[in-house]
Amino acid sequence: MSHNTFGHLFRVTTWGESHGPAIGCVIDGCPPRIPLTEADIQPWLDQRKPGGSRFVTQRQESDTAQILSGVFDDGDGPVTTGTPISILIRNEDQRSKDYGEIARAYRPGHADFAYQAKYGVRDHRGGGRSSARETASRVAAGAVARRILGDGVQIRAGVVQIGPHRIAPEAIDFDAVPGNPLFAASAEVVPDWEAYLDGVRKAGSSIGAVVALEATGVPAGWGAPLYGKLDTELAAALMSINAAKGVEIGAGFGAAELSGEDNADEMRLDLNRQPVFLSNQAGGVLGGISTGQSVTARVAFKPTSSILTPRQTITRDGEETDLRTKGRHDPCVALRAVPVVEAMAACVLADAFLRHRAQVG
Amino acid sequence: MSHNTFGHLFRVTTWGESHGPAIGCVIDGCPPRIPLTEADIQPWLDQRKPGGSRFVTQRQESDTAQILSGVFDDGDGPVTTGTPISILIRNEDQRSKDYGEIARAYRPGHADFAYQAKYGVRDHRGGGRSSARETASRVAAGAVARRILGDGVQIRAGVVQIGPHRIAPEAIDFDAVPGNPLFAASAEVVPDWEAYLDGVRKAGSSIGAVVALEATGVPAGWGAPLYGKLDTELAAALMSINAAKGVEIGAGFGAAELSGEDNADEMRLDLNRQPVFLSNQAGGVLGGISTGQSVTARVAFKPTSSILTPRQTITRDGEETDLRTKGRHDPCVALRAVPVVEAMAACVLADAFLRHRAQVG
Amino acid sequence: MSHNTFGHLFRVTTWGESHGPAIGCVIDGCPPRIPLTEADIQPWLDQRKPGGSRFVTQRQESDTAQILSGVFDDGDGPVTTGTPISILIRNEDQRSKDYGEIARAYRPGHADFAYQAKYGVRDHRGGGRSSARETASRVAAGAVARRILGDGVQIRAGVVQIGPHRIAPEAIDFDAVPGNPLFAASAEVVPDWEAYLDGVRKAGSSIGAVVALEATGVPAGWGAPLYGKLDTELAAALMSINAAKGVEIGAGFGAAELSGEDNADEMRLDLNRQPVFLSNQAGGVLGGISTGQSVTARVAFKPTSSILTPRQTITRDGEETDLRTKGRHDPCVALRAVPVVEAMAACVLADAFLRHRAQVG
Amino acid sequence: MSHNTFGHLFRVTTWGESHGPAIGCVIDGCPPRIPLTEADIQPWLDQRKPGGSRFVTQRQESDTAQILSGVFDDGDGPVTTGTPISILIRNEDQRSKDYGEIARAYRPGHADFAYQAKYGVRDHRGGGRSSARETASRVAAGAVARRILGDGVQIRAGVVQIGPHRIAPEAIDFDAVPGNPLFAASAEVVPDWEAYLDGVRKAGSSIGAVVALEATGVPAGWGAPLYGKLDTELAAALMSINAAKGVEIGAGFGAAELSGEDNADEMRLDLNRQPVFLSNQAGGVLGGISTGQSVTARVAFKPTSSILTPRQTITRDGEETDLRTKGRHDPCVALRAVPVVEAMAACVLADAFLRHRAQVG
Repeated sequence: MSHNTFGHLFRVTTWGESHGPAIGCVIDGCPPRIPLTEADIQPWLDQRKPGGSRFVTQRQESDTAQILSGVFDDGDGPVTTGTPISILIRNEDQRSKDYGEIARAYRPGHADFAYQAKYGVRDHRGGGRSSARETASRVAAGAVARRILGDGVQIRAGVVQIGPHRIAPEAIDFDAVPGNPLFAASAEVVPDWEAYLDGVRKAGSSIGAVVALEATGVPAGWGAPLYGKLDTELAAALMSINAAKGVEIGAGFGAAELSGEDNADEMRLDLNRQPVFLSNQAGGVLGGISTGQSVTARVAFKPTSSILTPRQTITRDGEETDLRTKGRHDPCVALRAVPVVEAMAACVLADAFLRHRAQVG
Repeated sequence: MSHNTFGHLFRVTTWGESHGPAIGCVIDGCPPRIPLTEADIQPWLDQRKPGGSRFVTQRQESDTAQILSGVFDDGDGPVTTGTPISILIRNEDQRSKDYGEIARAYRPGHADFAYQAKYGVRDHRGGGRSSARETASRVAAGAVARRILGDGVQIRAGVVQIGPHRIAPEAIDFDAVPGNPLFAASAEVVPDWEAYLDGVRKAGSSIGAVVALEATGVPAGWGAPLYGKLDTELAAALMSINAAKGVEIGAGFGAAELSGEDNADEMRLDLNRQPVFLSNQAGGVLGGISTGQSVTARVAFKPTSSILTPRQTITRDGEETDLRTKGRHDPCVALRAVPVVEAMAACVLADAFLRHRAQVG
Repeated sequence: MSHNTFGHLFRVTTWGESHGPAIGCVIDGCPPRIPLTEADIQPWLDQRKPGGSRFVTQRQESDTAQILSGVFDDGDGPVTTGTPISILIRNEDQRSKDYGEIARAYRPGHADFAYQAKYGVRDHRGGGRSSARETASRVAAGAVARRILGDGVQIRAGVVQIGPHRIAPEAIDFDAVPGNPLFAASAEVVPDWEAYLDGVRKAGSSIGAVVALEATGVPAGWGAPLYGKLDTELAAALMSINAAKGVEIGAGFGAAELSGEDNADEMRLDLNRQPVFLSNQAGGVLGGISTGQSVTARVAFKPTSSILTPRQTITRDGEETDLRTKGRHDPCVALRAVPVVEAMAACVLADAFLRHRAQVG
Repeated sequence: MSHNTFGHLFRVTTWGESHGPAIGCVIDGCPPRIPLTEADIQPWLDQRKPGGSRFVTQRQESDTAQILSGVFDDGDGPVTTGTPISILIRNEDQRSKDYGEIARAYRPGHADFAYQAKYGVRDHRGGGRSSARETASRVAAGAVARRILGDGVQIRAGVVQIGPHRIAPEAIDFDAVPGNPLFAASAEVVPDWEAYLDGVRKAGSSIGAVVALEATGVPAGWGAPLYGKLDTELAAALMSINAAKGVEIGAGFGAAELSGEDNADEMRLDLNRQPVFLSNQAGGVLGGISTGQSVTARVAFKPTSSILTPRQTITRDGEETDLRTKGRHDPCVALRAVPVVEAMAACVLADAFLRHRAQVG
């Protein structure tokens, strides 16, 4: 990962600010002859799209992905050519609001102060480069990554905790995620969670959440020790998502309370004399290499810092002030992170597949 | 990070297996004219050294670091020359035990199966490349990184949880760490923890733990969004440590339960009209860039899977068997991870410093 | 350099095909607060633009660069923000000619066969990704690199040989380049060269050439041995230009005939007691590091393979055939390479500057 | 390529100074299960070894390579394990001569001044890091690369020009190289060249040379446009060799004098209806991708600057002085570069093979 590029062989470079003319990404290293059109990308973007429910920002964006390169139709339909795939997404709702205040004052909990401290300048409009809007590029790249992985690898994520409300591990049901506006990994919790989140929203407040991830169908052998471990790459990719504050693989922090007996996943042979594990505390990764079990991870997201209550802060000019974030905001940014978590995992896995194929054939 | 190299400008490549003739690392990109001798490295290695107490593996290693290149004494004492620093650490205690059983059977919870699945071959002696022995190279590199950072940046870590026993956040005292064999970040807990860990050890069992990290003196502006974020780099570096299963920055998973009001660290000016934060839920990083606050993180470690109780497993030849790990082992591998956590943080910070200097001057 | 990205800290990723909707690049790692608008880029693109004279392809392109990100006007004019600069150049003249023949038959000397052999698919329209059209992205990136380098570093190139016609080293005058349509580094040769090239053009043939490069104002110390040497990076960057077949630094192949006495540039002190060299066989680079002398290089370009004479070739379907390239073509592709050579040198130098600043401060 | 590492997937990091305790390299990314012992490496090192004839430096080094990691014998002989291969070569002949003079004065034509200007310090003993001694590490890495490539790819190099004496292209015979101390690619020239070089040697002078390279058996499809082109990677790898000043692919600078008709290699089908080229001006690379023809290149080397005639120079302390290089030196450094040229080509090709396999399978 280097600044605005991630991946080693499946490399994604993203660019663009929240309120510039467009955002986008360039995907390099994609294998050739993979059928690909905008229709393969758009459904994933539609999932992440703002404006879909009252629980996410009301910014209006069609988030239409346009492929500008790297795909060619030689008669049998558009396929990747092995050259860079450039994807462009226009920004449409660059609301002409007055940015005077946040141009001047640093929003607490936002990247404003840090960008200014680093660069001495920042595009303050809507968060500029640090806006969650950039994650649309990740989702587009993830759609391409899924095409590389094929149907054998299934990647799913869902919200498993909002504030104090948790879904018990055994109740997690990723099939429930597409059917509810909260991306909750359980249909049962939705009414309660909606009520809870409506309360947060109406109070002009916000709340954190945890997203769980599961990738099935990952064969044993992906990941490259010691610094390109599959779990290391996943941790980096997931932690790079806006508002992420923690990443766990398998048992995660729970492993700190486990004994060696409980933690080590025992092995037997199945009826076909293939290896099976009797548990999955490891989250499908041992020594940084996939084992053939499901790869599981969890990501903690902080609440958005854009809230209606005035907060103490300072200005660029060195004055103390109080700031209240006006306008649209997400009561729980983690909801829209669900497709992003999936996308980042898809990119990491596609990259791991290519790297493994390179070294081992 | 790519396979066995990490870092972008301060680049560390490590090599070596547990029972080969030696392990070591090559450090590239170190600034020139930094005073450096083996004496700057050895104390950190001595901290991590096995055999130091009854709570860590009884393998006997002097862990003597030898600098083979990149340092030159032109009359004023040895200094770095800007060329690669090669560090060699001989393996001394390659006990000639019978590896027949673990050559054949996969130790549950270990990397054995995964390495074999990936490479079709593995150096099974003492875990080969996946052995924690490799972390000595990281500690050596971390010692060099500290020299780059200078005394202004202080990096400290300590164990804050062993199994069910936790140190309350307000009781964490990194000054206590060097004074006890458990690397515990509180002197008070030591007697209880020793008793607890003696029980684990005598039972031939093992237990997980959590290590906390704090880096003070990091100026605002380090880290490069979006995929070279400081927290992203830290997450990757820490997750790459053997047995790590989770990483948190600042409030971490706790942020999932915070409201926007509680999470966003408010700002004021101090008496010198410099920015101060009234809290540090962010862990010193906003938008992937350091803010000038302390950088804080936590890492969860699983228990070692080498335990005395026989466990169900399979062999390379496709037979079911039961395996009991004989010989020396760590009841809590996380203890020896404390210097490694510090070292990885030092490397990440030195790299971030150089990258920041490159782009911003 | 990795596939479609070059540079280490000043990183340029290019994308796009000759006959797709657009081409472009993403520049990452640019320092912040550098004044930059499209007007800083356009003049360099205009130099390279096709259709400018009878000696270059008659394709009509305005080559208008649009900056989509990474620049922000906070009141004092647009400046770089340190985030990725995405530059888009629309393709306008995608002449709807019949590509049937070259879709099927490999043009000898072109990349057609190689792309097909590698990828099993290729965008054959106008050469697709291998078209010289891509070099517009390089020129745009080079314009940004020049802004980083500032006025102190001056980078100039010119044609010094076309076919058998050479400009003697002592007659090279880079000031003459902008004033003639042949980019010749001497005003005197222009009438003869025009007559010669008119003959080549009318014969439907083409001819190779050599471009010389000189960068003045490069301070001593840039370049990083051993594999990031300044001359190594230059060689790679220049060899990556379409049709390049050879690169020399300083005396180049001529050094093979020099004695040690003649080759080693002797040193004295100038009136300010600063080091001066009495010759520059080294081309401004020793041990891979700039010496403060002018950095000089030469690049050999092959003739374009698109000629009117029918040539023997084979088809994708494994048939022998003869092929005659119809339509517009360059009699000497090297002419338009002059701004590209300058641009690549600018990118390499900007990158070397940032890398040096990172390591040495 | 980044500082002291080259390659993307087959990555080689070298370290060490001429007069330190040792030099060496770490090879990362090597495929597993390739038989490898020191005996596979040593013969190549022996070729490059100093002290072999009166035409190369009389330094006495056994250049014994020791493999420290990455190879394991599980009963069927030592094979690579997919983990880093660390190779160590001790420096033996660190003659205790007085370095006082060259510690102070910059040798004209050497890297002394440039290193000092960049780093403010340099290991002056025997050239330190810039010594040709480092190329032993490259040769060791090249030996491993050859094992990856297998016997199907044959890489050969030889001297084709010394000073004014050239071997005509049609007379080049790589089979002659191992049989003469000049690495000349023709047995016929040897007596004359020996006489010529004896003259140079006795005069205490030195002379440049050109080395030609040919790799046969490279399948079509290797190399990755646009910035990882096979010819670009080769150019960088070859230009990174000490004393290299120019690199050509195929017709090279000669292409500047070719017409399009002569330059474009025509294609026909052979008796098996496989593509054949009727010439090889391209040097086996089109659009940066191998075509299945032999890959051919040439490298120009400057004469060593260590000569007996006193040369004007300056000192570190800013004084003018004259310097005469005492002690052993090479009359023509290019001779010993022949195995290095081969080794770098082997590394580039192994890397290209892995990259191609990653993307295309």
